[in-house]
Amino acid sequence: MEFYGIEHRQVISKLEALWVNLNGLSVLAKQYGIRDIFQDNGAKILQQLVYLNMIGLPGRVGNDSVSSSGTEWEMKSINIETSASGFSTNHHTNLVIIEKYRKIPWTFSIYRGIDLQEIYVLTPEMLEPLYLRWEERLKSMTHLNNPKIPLSYVRQNGILVYPIDPGNPLDPDTVI
Amino acid sequence: MEFYGIEHRQVISKLEALWVNLNGLSVLAKQYGIRDIFQDNGAKILQQLVYLNMIGLPGRVGNDSVSSSGTEWEMKSINIETSASGFSTNHHTNLVIIEKYRKIPWTFSIYRGIDLQEIYVLTPEMLEPLYLRWEERLKSMTHLNNPKIPLSYVRQNGILVYPIDPGNPLDPDTVI
Repeated sequence: MEFYGIEHRQVISKLEALWVNLNGLSVLAKQYGIRDIFQDNGAKILQQLVYLNMIGLPGRVGNDSVSSSGTEWEMKSINIETSASGFSTNHHTNLVIIEKYRKIPWTFSIYRGIDLQEIYVLTPEMLEPLYLRWEERLKSMTHLNNPKIPLSYVRQNGILVYPIDPGNPLDPDTVI
Repeated sequence: MEFYGIEHRQVISKLEALWVNLNGLSVLAKQYGIRDIFQDNGAKILQQLVYLNMIGLPGRVGNDSVSSSGTEWEMKSINIETSASGFSTNHHTNLVIIEKYRKIPWTFSIYRGIDLQEIYVLTPEMLEPLYLRWEERLKSMTHLNNPKIPLSYVRQNGILVYPIDPGNPLDPDTVI
């Protein structure tokens, strides 16, 4: 393709038309505590926060979001086009981290590419069987390298909150 | 904000209107070798590739892009809202990496938030004074931890290729 020839100018115009909306998305993201929509799945996290009615908690340590009741949440997502096996946790999961996980509810978002398919909420009680299993394995090692939370486990044990049912909208705050 | 109340539904509608264009952006990105626009600055890299008339080289090892002449490029970007000091290189820069850098031209993109301000091209010759300085420092250590390429160095020594001058468009391929 010739530099700044007709084809190149067409693709530039196309990009520029698509880019305009990103400014709106970026402004909305900042209101939800997301600093950069192009890093670390920022735009997808914004999308989840909007549907879940939560605000992001910036920074890499600590929990991911807070709901209107003041409850803090761990938020996970998966792209089933690229990783089918389950939700990632932590590459150094040990007893301290499991205790931290026990204190909070989680949201699990399932994407196909960039399309959000489902969001589930799991309470600490719903996740407890996994924590017990991990603790059993930790009797013979110092940490677990990213134990996965299986997609099937989330679908079987969780409460579906997205797609939002307009007739019976389930506020994550009320299902925990 | 009440869950699925009027305010919540308004912000959902706003998000959904903004989201529509992301599908177009995601499709365009795949044509340019970008797998995920929400990770690792994918959307910004797409934008640079479109203006520069290059294609991305997926994967984390090796060079970043290829231009129509078949030349491979290293692409760097900076957000001057969050990091003013200079362009990052490599946390384990050693003699082997410097030799690799010497073989290729670089593009340097300067952003203010998500707004692209300028792109410069620097040839290996233009970057050579920095490489010599790094090699001098490597006489007393095994590697350098992310030596920065100063913004001022890029602006003083590089060739501006974006904003594209419609009267005199500079193809990066022709300025190296």
